[in-house]
Amino acid sequence: MQIKLAKKYGFCFGVKRAIQIAEKTKNSITLGPLIHNPKEISRLEVKFGVRVEEDTQMIKNGEHVIIRTHGIPKGDLEYLKTKDVQITDATCPYVTKPQEIVEFMSKEGYQIIIFGDKTHPEVKGVMSYSTTQPIVVSSLEELKEAKIGKKIALVSQTTKQANNLLQIASYLITHCYEARIFNTICNATLDNQESARELSKEVDVMIVVGGKTSSNTKQLLNIALQNCTDSYLVEDENDLDMRWFEGKNICGITAGASTPDWIIDKVKEKIQSL
Amino acid sequence: MQIKLAKKYGFCFGVKRAIQIAEKTKNSITLGPLIHNPKEISRLEVKFGVRVEEDTQMIKNGEHVIIRTHGIPKGDLEYLKTKDVQITDATCPYVTKPQEIVEFMSKEGYQIIIFGDKTHPEVKGVMSYSTTQPIVVSSLEELKEAKIGKKIALVSQTTKQANNLLQIASYLITHCYEARIFNTICNATLDNQESARELSKEVDVMIVVGGKTSSNTKQLLNIALQNCTDSYLVEDENDLDMRWFEGKNICGITAGASTPDWIIDKVKEKIQSL
Repeated sequence: MQIKLAKKYGFCFGVKRAIQIAEKTKNSITLGPLIHNPKEISRLEVKFGVRVEEDTQMIKNGEHVIIRTHGIPKGDLEYLKTKDVQITDATCPYVTKPQEIVEFMSKEGYQIIIFGDKTHPEVKGVMSYSTTQPIVVSSLEELKEAKIGKKIALVSQTTKQANNLLQIASYLITHCYEARIFNTICNATLDNQESARELSKEVDVMIVVGGKTSSNTKQLLNIALQNCTDSYLVEDENDLDMRWFEGKNICGITAGASTPDWIIDKVKEKIQSL
Repeated sequence: MQIKLAKKYGFCFGVKRAIQIAEKTKNSITLGPLIHNPKEISRLEVKFGVRVEEDTQMIKNGEHVIIRTHGIPKGDLEYLKTKDVQITDATCPYVTKPQEIVEFMSKEGYQIIIFGDKTHPEVKGVMSYSTTQPIVVSSLEELKEAKIGKKIALVSQTTKQANNLLQIASYLITHCYEARIFNTICNATLDNQESARELSKEVDVMIVVGGKTSSNTKQLLNIALQNCTDSYLVEDENDLDMRWFEGKNICGITAGASTPDWIIDKVKEKIQSL
């Protein structure tokens, strides 16, 4: 089996930075998983004593809290600050940006529109910075149902696809007087997506390595499926199914922004051994 | 010959307003033609003594100057104000708006991008309000040649087509960090375009009545041609060619925003008499 890696794949700047912070801050707590990759979260717990806590109420005085890459709601951060805990912010700077934009623009009287998934931690965090009720839409169809004002500010979840953002933006431009559009899609995400798109055209089977709750990993799978119907998402080498490779010659591999190299290497080795 | 008029056609709000002003301000001068319709300009001269002057230098003290619907460059207006002339502003409020936006946004440090035709008086006027060098593009191809900054503000010539504005906007959103997009396309233009599009699907031959230098009239012709290859632009009934109607049953008529009803009526009568 010939293996081709995507030109760009795996860890982005924000994830690398967060993991370095976690490795340096032994025995700390992250509020929600630091990144969307359960295997890497386990490794941090086993090797560095970094535990995950879901609820701010459970954090005791004297503890050291790391803010996850996706950020947390403003209220949770404010609550933590009232406690006697040390806080280290590992929010990706590309996520801090839409938080700041949403706060400033809502104060300036712009109606906030967020293109993203309401249930995703990043979006929950960004929403919480709006001083007015933001509109969150994950598709153009949802936007068409919403009542929008004359002056809007649009931000995007960092891991969304640019062509979908443009659909949303085009609707707003033709339905508002002023559309203030902030392209907060992360370049690393775009680069990984572009590389996955190219590679998926050249291969017989495509493996996307990443967490099943990772938004950008799911996007990579969707993009791969557009060109290669034999595309599969695996969290690690144990998820590989030998039948996927029967009669195939070239296998492409890409990985989400929160997938560590050590997992990608194991997946590669197992496929190579076929 | 059955005749069908477009649902919406002809005079827009800004043109109606300008003509009312001109009729009330007898023996005045307009700097450039008040509207883009030579026949109506002649009528205003013959009946109300309203003359056209192309050069501010030619305007003598004591005269009454009307600013045309498309507006004039800021420098020309300032020069006029230094003279002993009375000024009445008939600039369409939908054109004043992009002038104001361009002035304010350029002062705020946004790079100004104008979607429009460099040689059109409206665009020349809007350009002149930018405190920095604006980029004027009439197509996506032209935009791709330009060096654009991180923060841009986009306005449109009022008579442009929305789908072309969206192409320009989409490029900017994916190439800038912040795109501040002002949809300055005039609704009357959009309504006339939409009506022309619908009507051109139902007829055998389509007549667009309007000035040959009128931007919105030319757009109507382009839209009509997309659905009806037998579409023609006429300034008045004398431009009609009988051969266009041979073997045809239904004729559609639309008219540019600066075409008066009295010209449309004459065109209609002549076609009806066939």
